[in-house]
Amino acid sequence: MRTDLVRPGSGELTYEIRNIVNVAEKLQKHGVRINWENIGDPIVKGEVIPEWMKEIVAKAVMDNSTWGYCHTRGVLQTREYICETTNSRGGAQITPDDIIFFNGLGDAIAKIYGSLRSEARVLMPSPSYTTHTLGEIGHAHSAPSLFRLKSEDKWRPDMDDLRNHIKYNPNICAIMIINPDNPTGMVYTEETLREIVQIARENDLFIIADEVYINIVYNGEKTVPISDVIGDVPAISLKGISKEFPWPGSRCGWIEVYNGNSDEQFRKYVNLILTGKMNEVCSTTLPQTVIPEIVRHPEYTLYLQERIACYEKMSNCLSQVPALQVNRTNGAFYMAVAFKDGLLNHRQSISIANSEVKELVEGLVNQPGVSPDKRFVYHILAATGICIVPLSSFSTPLQGFRVTLLEKDENECRRIYSTLSEKIGEYLNS
Amino acid sequence: MRTDLVRPGSGELTYEIRNIVNVAEKLQKHGVRINWENIGDPIVKGEVIPEWMKEIVAKAVMDNSTWGYCHTRGVLQTREYICETTNSRGGAQITPDDIIFFNGLGDAIAKIYGSLRSEARVLMPSPSYTTHTLGEIGHAHSAPSLFRLKSEDKWRPDMDDLRNHIKYNPNICAIMIINPDNPTGMVYTEETLREIVQIARENDLFIIADEVYINIVYNGEKTVPISDVIGDVPAISLKGISKEFPWPGSRCGWIEVYNGNSDEQFRKYVNLILTGKMNEVCSTTLPQTVIPEIVRHPEYTLYLQERIACYEKMSNCLSQVPALQVNRTNGAFYMAVAFKDGLLNHRQSISIANSEVKELVEGLVNQPGVSPDKRFVYHILAATGICIVPLSSFSTPLQGFRVTLLEKDENECRRIYSTLSEKIGEYLNS
Amino acid sequence: MRTDLVRPGSGELTYEIRNIVNVAEKLQKHGVRINWENIGDPIVKGEVIPEWMKEIVAKAVMDNSTWGYCHTRGVLQTREYICETTNSRGGAQITPDDIIFFNGLGDAIAKIYGSLRSEARVLMPSPSYTTHTLGEIGHAHSAPSLFRLKSEDKWRPDMDDLRNHIKYNPNICAIMIINPDNPTGMVYTEETLREIVQIARENDLFIIADEVYINIVYNGEKTVPISDVIGDVPAISLKGISKEFPWPGSRCGWIEVYNGNSDEQFRKYVNLILTGKMNEVCSTTLPQTVIPEIVRHPEYTLYLQERIACYEKMSNCLSQVPALQVNRTNGAFYMAVAFKDGLLNHRQSISIANSEVKELVEGLVNQPGVSPDKRFVYHILAATGICIVPLSSFSTPLQGFRVTLLEKDENECRRIYSTLSEKIGEYLNS
Amino acid sequence: MRTDLVRPGSGELTYEIRNIVNVAEKLQKHGVRINWENIGDPIVKGEVIPEWMKEIVAKAVMDNSTWGYCHTRGVLQTREYICETTNSRGGAQITPDDIIFFNGLGDAIAKIYGSLRSEARVLMPSPSYTTHTLGEIGHAHSAPSLFRLKSEDKWRPDMDDLRNHIKYNPNICAIMIINPDNPTGMVYTEETLREIVQIARENDLFIIADEVYINIVYNGEKTVPISDVIGDVPAISLKGISKEFPWPGSRCGWIEVYNGNSDEQFRKYVNLILTGKMNEVCSTTLPQTVIPEIVRHPEYTLYLQERIACYEKMSNCLSQVPALQVNRTNGAFYMAVAFKDGLLNHRQSISIANSEVKELVEGLVNQPGVSPDKRFVYHILAATGICIVPLSSFSTPLQGFRVTLLEKDENECRRIYSTLSEKIGEYLNS
Repeated sequence: MRTDLVRPGSGELTYEIRNIVNVAEKLQKHGVRINWENIGDPIVKGEVIPEWMKEIVAKAVMDNSTWGYCHTRGVLQTREYICETTNSRGGAQITPDDIIFFNGLGDAIAKIYGSLRSEARVLMPSPSYTTHTLGEIGHAHSAPSLFRLKSEDKWRPDMDDLRNHIKYNPNICAIMIINPDNPTGMVYTEETLREIVQIARENDLFIIADEVYINIVYNGEKTVPISDVIGDVPAISLKGISKEFPWPGSRCGWIEVYNGNSDEQFRKYVNLILTGKMNEVCSTTLPQTVIPEIVRHPEYTLYLQERIACYEKMSNCLSQVPALQVNRTNGAFYMAVAFKDGLLNHRQSISIANSEVKELVEGLVNQPGVSPDKRFVYHILAATGICIVPLSSFSTPLQGFRVTLLEKDENECRRIYSTLSEKIGEYLNS
Repeated sequence: MRTDLVRPGSGELTYEIRNIVNVAEKLQKHGVRINWENIGDPIVKGEVIPEWMKEIVAKAVMDNSTWGYCHTRGVLQTREYICETTNSRGGAQITPDDIIFFNGLGDAIAKIYGSLRSEARVLMPSPSYTTHTLGEIGHAHSAPSLFRLKSEDKWRPDMDDLRNHIKYNPNICAIMIINPDNPTGMVYTEETLREIVQIARENDLFIIADEVYINIVYNGEKTVPISDVIGDVPAISLKGISKEFPWPGSRCGWIEVYNGNSDEQFRKYVNLILTGKMNEVCSTTLPQTVIPEIVRHPEYTLYLQERIACYEKMSNCLSQVPALQVNRTNGAFYMAVAFKDGLLNHRQSISIANSEVKELVEGLVNQPGVSPDKRFVYHILAATGICIVPLSSFSTPLQGFRVTLLEKDENECRRIYSTLSEKIGEYLNS
Repeated sequence: MRTDLVRPGSGELTYEIRNIVNVAEKLQKHGVRINWENIGDPIVKGEVIPEWMKEIVAKAVMDNSTWGYCHTRGVLQTREYICETTNSRGGAQITPDDIIFFNGLGDAIAKIYGSLRSEARVLMPSPSYTTHTLGEIGHAHSAPSLFRLKSEDKWRPDMDDLRNHIKYNPNICAIMIINPDNPTGMVYTEETLREIVQIARENDLFIIADEVYINIVYNGEKTVPISDVIGDVPAISLKGISKEFPWPGSRCGWIEVYNGNSDEQFRKYVNLILTGKMNEVCSTTLPQTVIPEIVRHPEYTLYLQERIACYEKMSNCLSQVPALQVNRTNGAFYMAVAFKDGLLNHRQSISIANSEVKELVEGLVNQPGVSPDKRFVYHILAATGICIVPLSSFSTPLQGFRVTLLEKDENECRRIYSTLSEKIGEYLNS
Repeated sequence: MRTDLVRPGSGELTYEIRNIVNVAEKLQKHGVRINWENIGDPIVKGEVIPEWMKEIVAKAVMDNSTWGYCHTRGVLQTREYICETTNSRGGAQITPDDIIFFNGLGDAIAKIYGSLRSEARVLMPSPSYTTHTLGEIGHAHSAPSLFRLKSEDKWRPDMDDLRNHIKYNPNICAIMIINPDNPTGMVYTEETLREIVQIARENDLFIIADEVYINIVYNGEKTVPISDVIGDVPAISLKGISKEFPWPGSRCGWIEVYNGNSDEQFRKYVNLILTGKMNEVCSTTLPQTVIPEIVRHPEYTLYLQERIACYEKMSNCLSQVPALQVNRTNGAFYMAVAFKDGLLNHRQSISIANSEVKELVEGLVNQPGVSPDKRFVYHILAATGICIVPLSSFSTPLQGFRVTLLEKDENECRRIYSTLSEKIGEYLNS
């Protein structure tokens, strides 16, 4: 090329949650059977979509109108339905114009961070879901600002840390939360949400609330959508059907904008997000179309409850492993566990039977700069086929891993956790 | 907000092709019946999806696997199928790793321009499809570099102009073409494509070829995919199912990367595009899944031919209007026509019966800075309900409009064109 | 212009310390006699350069070599002389290659901040000398990060605040101090300097120390150059002759780089600063040439001591004004005083005899957004001809003003301070 | 450092005109006597400043006021004097507010390019003086746009090339010329200047005219300052005393702004340049102060004429060397010569007696990527001590060198050119 194409320093970003897939696929070719505990996709873990739900979609496919473009903001009837749902709670009141559909929340997140000027920074939790942190890094070209979720206290947010970041970093313009949280499974209390909203109000910030798991809460915990407590503070809520129906392959999510006209900069910012979507015409029509019918279906609530009950059953799965700091999962379907301080080192290993696989993994983990938990995770993958994600890849200095609670076959699920427990011991004692 | 959120100067972009929809919707509320000639959506113009095609999709919906995430690059079997198709032509040879699926070409275009460093510029045709020019403007924060399609010579590219842009602007790193072209309906000859490839080779540039209409060519014209003539030049082809099945609401398109490893900067660039998609997990699974079965279906070819025959029939529709410079459409399904020089002014009008509608339109077109063809287009919309797009909104100084050839009802189609002819006369003589 | 020339949002920066000069000049045309207490220029306040010093320079002028370019880094003999001086203290050891001369510290500051990538931020004191804060704002396009100098505690730095900024803002790459400080006259103790160096060491930061006033310390205070305590931490010291000889019109200052090769990024950064200077060939030759002879002159030390004694005599000048929070000045030759909380408002005034002057000033201070201390300062200027600078223009929320201790005529000096005291009373009681 | 300090890709810029000095200094240590033909400093080549001129400056030194700061724009009396000079020609009319003094034109150039937004580009000649091209590259982070000076036609500008750059690169906002030109010695005719102004007018561009050599024209050539022909087009002229008095060590130059209020963007841009200077307080006072007295001195004109006569005498010095394409120098005091096509290669050499020197030079020129003329220049330096600059370092593909006409000793001057002629032969035939 006669001129450089990419910004110096870019072009070689890695994304651990996805990268490990490439390794796992290589192992598959060596005959290793993989348990995909690395990704929040219920389908791949055996979830079966109910017949009635499939039939709603199949019926919609037979209607020509679902094949065409829809409005840039999304199908009007569905936006009206969402407005009703949100408005009926009595908190923030919105109109269909306050809703924009995206091709999944990944698309929404890319546009939310990408539309900010590079100097405006979003404060986010640590650990944090990678798509958010990479979105933030991508737009700002520097390390994200992170407030701590306390591994020693049920992953609750460290509110002093949150306040100090805002006080000492004048570039912070927004607070981002994920409720229930990914990767920790923590559920924000209403009181904490109100406190965060108040901090935003006092400091003239807006809030980004990723609420894609908002209806997946258990163990008796309670939370509310941010719209219930937002008052007059500008905010964006992210919602979607990927995790709930579950239909991750639909790439269908939306944002709800609260108090969109209360601040001129915020208004311009939301308009810029909309312009980005307008330039792509619109988002997927079919999944948007069927949302009201599916959610209103008489069996929907029960179906979701049954799935949630499964997650609840597994929500304390690794608590008996003494090397780990485990906080019970109370929402979403991930568990994030940290090894106790100082337990991991760069010499530990698990025996790997297949010599080719052994060589492949050792080549990967003996690179300089590999974090101890990445070393652990690759050994687990090679020795057991269980594919988990290093906790340190979620923007935290903690060493550990994230595992899902999604395996539909209960026996297999228990086998996975007991295998993990056993192999952790072997690894630490090696 | 305590700090500005958007880059100064941004936040107020407008997008004429979509904006006119807002006006048309207001007119609908005043009882005006709209002919949506503004958008390339066959469905909205009455295209009926064949039963066999719907059934393929509905059957796929009943399969759980179409509900889950797919590979970041897209469904492997479909990528393998596409490779076969491309490779069998004997030109560029690719593997499934050279294909990345996106949520429609709008998504692909956003990532293609957005991954370039801001100083690297893409040369594009004028007139040009807005999504490309806005993508280029958005990443570079300045006016696009445009080579001229000759309205006086069948919209063929002005090759001297193209060469001069490359010679005199050292920041240009790529040539973008749309083949067949939107909005002009021009089809590139193989000879011209070879010439463009040779210019790229000599100047160490890459090529972006938007080939979403590549199978919609008529009037005896011939072209080839860029992969047939690309040789050793790095290139990206954009393809999709929105216009061909047609399934615009699926948001499903893909890029094919040719000679992706022949240049280190190009390799990094493509990797950055992939990273952007990886951050969103993947693109829509369902439509990707059904592509091979639909394209291989015994009725597919005939079905497409019948649609093409309709477009061909209308492809010279406005040629009898003496005020217009009309080039017959030979591909895709748009016609771009320019008024002859000096015919439009800021005083012309058509009588609008409804006084409220009249007031609305006059308020819009009597703003300072409104281009003469935008004035014309809004009068046509208000007086006839025919919604067309001003040609000047496609990055060209030419004044005219783009109309589609999509109306499925042949009588209605003829009525639209004759109404346009008649009203053009009334407007020019007013 | 066919394309915008300036970054949106720029082009209209104001610089209060200089702006007030425009107003004062207008007042001069209305017959107001001005006392220029706004700028750190001893000459304008009556300082007389000793004959021996002038003769050294006049003699050098007769030597052809002082008319030519010098080395990009500066005159070698002078850099060697500076090295000896610094190295003989036994702290940081440097070579002539670690010194770069600039056209005054304004030039040095512009290049020091301008060579940083926009994401890398320098933490600086509040209040802070405007040239530093505007340099930082200019390179980063956002508000500066500021640690507090405590007006309630002799303007000593709030070390907790300093530590918290570093902890909570990952973009901070350096700590900037001015010692002795402008505008507060505070002198850093050796202990505090060591503490700041240790913070830099622990957080992998570098230090910028503006030491242009390093030899102007009094009231029995003691400090040391940063080179005495810097140890192995990368640092840049700024020094010059503007304030000391004093020869502000020479535009002659230099940087000393400590531990310039201890960190690869720091090495590249210093090299970029040098490249900026190389592009301008070199800095002024004449003043560089005479530095060793002047400083070594037998009368130099005594001369400087006499000047310092004058500043010391005035260093507590406004302490009797009850409305003010006054900290004695111990170094440099400015006093920064803050009004006690709540004393200033937007309705106070002093009677201004000349009606044209009155109108001019009221037009300026009754604009929306004018800070209370700016209102005060303009009234003082118009009523008394004493030109001081609002404290809030030094990046602090404190309301007050900066005055110099430079007036050479002791009676005039006392008159100025007593006039200020009196008019403060009139203003507050109005 | 905990965060990167410099923009990726920067920090390692080289500047050939200055770099060769480092090599020459190394050679000096090996006993090679150097002729400094690389830099436009008359003093270093033996120019003796007239006594009367030195005495004016020495006298000014004895005046306290020359030691203080001056106005941010520069000493008012001098600016008034310059206005008179410019205005009396009858072209552009300016006030003292249209003049800003800088610390040499290097400082002015840094601020002129540095104040443009990065997307706005300045078209400049090729070959071009390095400070301009590096200033442009630095602000835009990409290769400069260059119009060709025709080596085959007396270095006259290729006006078609100039027009095409403007036509095909929409980011170009200004045309920069150096008149008389450095490094070619070409003098623009009034007709060409008028043509360039007209092109700027038609395309809504401004003009930057570096006129530091405007009074050094000979061989019967004629030119005019740009102010004579600028009409209503916004422009900036750069002038200074470095080359004319000559006093390069003074770092004293200024800009004159023509039609500064005729365009809002241009007004903001000039204001931004002024703000940059304001942030540094002001430029050097002493040299500004003496300008009127020196220029008005009865001997000044004759003195300058005598110097010019020397340059004229040498202005065709290398025309007898058949391997070179030589255009007589008609202004300034440089000669740029190009080798005829294909004469230089990577194997040629001159015998170098000192083996250490030989090794040093071979280590430098046998690096990959060294241009053929750089190889030539280093051989000449090592074999003869004559330090010249490769022509290719002046942003041109031409291979050759720039030599000065400054050597004051006529015999030495002739010896240098004859040595060059001879060694060129030896090199080419080796």
